[in-house]
Amino acid sequence: MLTFIGLGLSNEKGLTQEAMDALKSADIVYLETYTSPLSKIKIPKAQEVSRTFVEDGRKILSESSDKNLILLCYGDPVVATTHMGLRVRAERNGIDTKVIHSASILSAIPGETGLHSYKFGRTVTMTRAAPAKNLYVYHSLHANLLNGLHSLILLEYDSSSNFFLDPKAAIRSLLETEQEQKKLVIPPECFIIVCSRVGQSTQRIVGGKASSLSKKNFGKPPHAIVLPGELHYTEEEALRHVCKIKDDVTGNSARVKLPAVEMVSKYVTKAKKALEGARSRAQKEGKRFDSLFENVELYTLDAERFLNEGKYELAILSIGYAEGLLDSLNFTNQLDVEW
Amino acid sequence: MLTFIGLGLSNEKGLTQEAMDALKSADIVYLETYTSPLSKIKIPKAQEVSRTFVEDGRKILSESSDKNLILLCYGDPVVATTHMGLRVRAERNGIDTKVIHSASILSAIPGETGLHSYKFGRTVTMTRAAPAKNLYVYHSLHANLLNGLHSLILLEYDSSSNFFLDPKAAIRSLLETEQEQKKLVIPPECFIIVCSRVGQSTQRIVGGKASSLSKKNFGKPPHAIVLPGELHYTEEEALRHVCKIKDDVTGNSARVKLPAVEMVSKYVTKAKKALEGARSRAQKEGKRFDSLFENVELYTLDAERFLNEGKYELAILSIGYAEGLLDSLNFTNQLDVEW
Repeated sequence: MLTFIGLGLSNEKGLTQEAMDALKSADIVYLETYTSPLSKIKIPKAQEVSRTFVEDGRKILSESSDKNLILLCYGDPVVATTHMGLRVRAERNGIDTKVIHSASILSAIPGETGLHSYKFGRTVTMTRAAPAKNLYVYHSLHANLLNGLHSLILLEYDSSSNFFLDPKAAIRSLLETEQEQKKLVIPPECFIIVCSRVGQSTQRIVGGKASSLSKKNFGKPPHAIVLPGELHYTEEEALRHVCKIKDDVTGNSARVKLPAVEMVSKYVTKAKKALEGARSRAQKEGKRFDSLFENVELYTLDAERFLNEGKYELAILSIGYAEGLLDSLNFTNQLDVEW
Repeated sequence: MLTFIGLGLSNEKGLTQEAMDALKSADIVYLETYTSPLSKIKIPKAQEVSRTFVEDGRKILSESSDKNLILLCYGDPVVATTHMGLRVRAERNGIDTKVIHSASILSAIPGETGLHSYKFGRTVTMTRAAPAKNLYVYHSLHANLLNGLHSLILLEYDSSSNFFLDPKAAIRSLLETEQEQKKLVIPPECFIIVCSRVGQSTQRIVGGKASSLSKKNFGKPPHAIVLPGELHYTEEEALRHVCKIKDDVTGNSARVKLPAVEMVSKYVTKAKKALEGARSRAQKEGKRFDSLFENVELYTLDAERFLNEGKYELAILSIGYAEGLLDSLNFTNQLDVEW
């Protein structure tokens, strides 16, 4: 039998009563040391094992085929793919498996920040290595903001080199990506939150401008960053009164516009001006395109209406159509239309 | 001092060591009974209190101003807005607050299903009451699927009437919404997962077609439903070998298309056909619109290219423009273009 037991967010104090019972009847207890730099953990019988040992898994599998083996993991176990891989291999080999859950950063962050858990979008992990991967982080943050959702950004930890991506470095990297991408996902003045050592006695939640937090030291890991989307007033209250954030607490969704909204707004203005010019030129030249002009006008108004109704595809289609109608006069040499 | 303590997913066995220590030094212990129908909980000193009592909160606040008061809650506390409201009121009144976290359904579900936690989108709650609210659930599921993400659907629980929305009823309601909305979010043959009593000894994870699960009984609450988005092969393996799901395990994102993709595909076909017709009619009538026709063709090809590149806004704009160009011949009575 292979039992995965969650250590929660701090040390052995995060073990549940169910976990304590299971530990009593265990034959072998392994303590995984790689997933996060917790406080020193004291558990009788437990042998510390490395990431490689768990990933390889052969000893664990052979021992758990006839013994009660426990693998202790940070947080709520099996959320990590390594554990699930091991669990699948065990079950395929006819070894029973079980998880005894404990606290996880995934639920503790909403609990400690007051941000509503159902308003979090996709969670992302930032790594030091690949800028391409962090571009994916940026796009995920963008998608969450467009939907008004908060983003939880976990930071890479590598036990072999004892490397934990520092919040400063992570924020700087995101600010650099912002300078290239310019989607207003994380401009220097935007409001973000750094959550350090959540669930431990030294927990600290700091909120402020990205630019100023990119210069702050947050002490020992683990850390996570939250980019809030739309903020409900109860969320703002919690950030101010529970997390004691003095800086301006503001959501980040309002400034992020769908590409469709920007596109249609811009082209509607252009089309209206071009139509006005075309009408006056046609009059001067004594030409008449009444039906065409009327339709350009109607489809431009349609585009605005669809935009207001949130029907973005129809809005773009309408303004494209209006442009095409008007521009046809150029291609058929009937009138010089200027854009 | 007001301390919120998580009970985890089952009974008092979900309390952590830290929680046990805190309970020893507590003056008053309240046990909230409303959030979920757990197994009977045995905690010395604990007085059961109702939802109304916690929402009102005045007794809790006055007592915790000079005593060590503990509020025991299902799962990981303060994720519920009621708790956070109470925490904010306490802090505003100068009362220190603290949370001792425990296991939450939010992290246990990825752990038990093998679905990657970072591939979950927005979590939604389904209620029995408002169809409008469930329409919002449907749209959230749609948005998650479009992004390849899994959806966790929590089901309403009302302690006052001891009502827990049954998975059967929830699935049926979603299937009905599908019949009206027709976005292929949850057609009868799609693969979904019902997670019952997660973290308890009677836990059961059942996967299968929505239509067949809508007729199944899942026993005692709590339940949650998962609609998987794109499935990685390791996720499929976990569902088959850990959850022992015999039915076809398939993701649901592939069949869900962006409105833009459908729109552009349809209009490109229409525009090509209309252009072909217009060219042959122009030839018959001895008229020439070479430059216009050429541009209709180029912008139609552009639309296809942008679509393949995932540039949906530009794809729609291009096809709209191509349509407008071609249709102008109708409005200026130069040629009869049929669509």
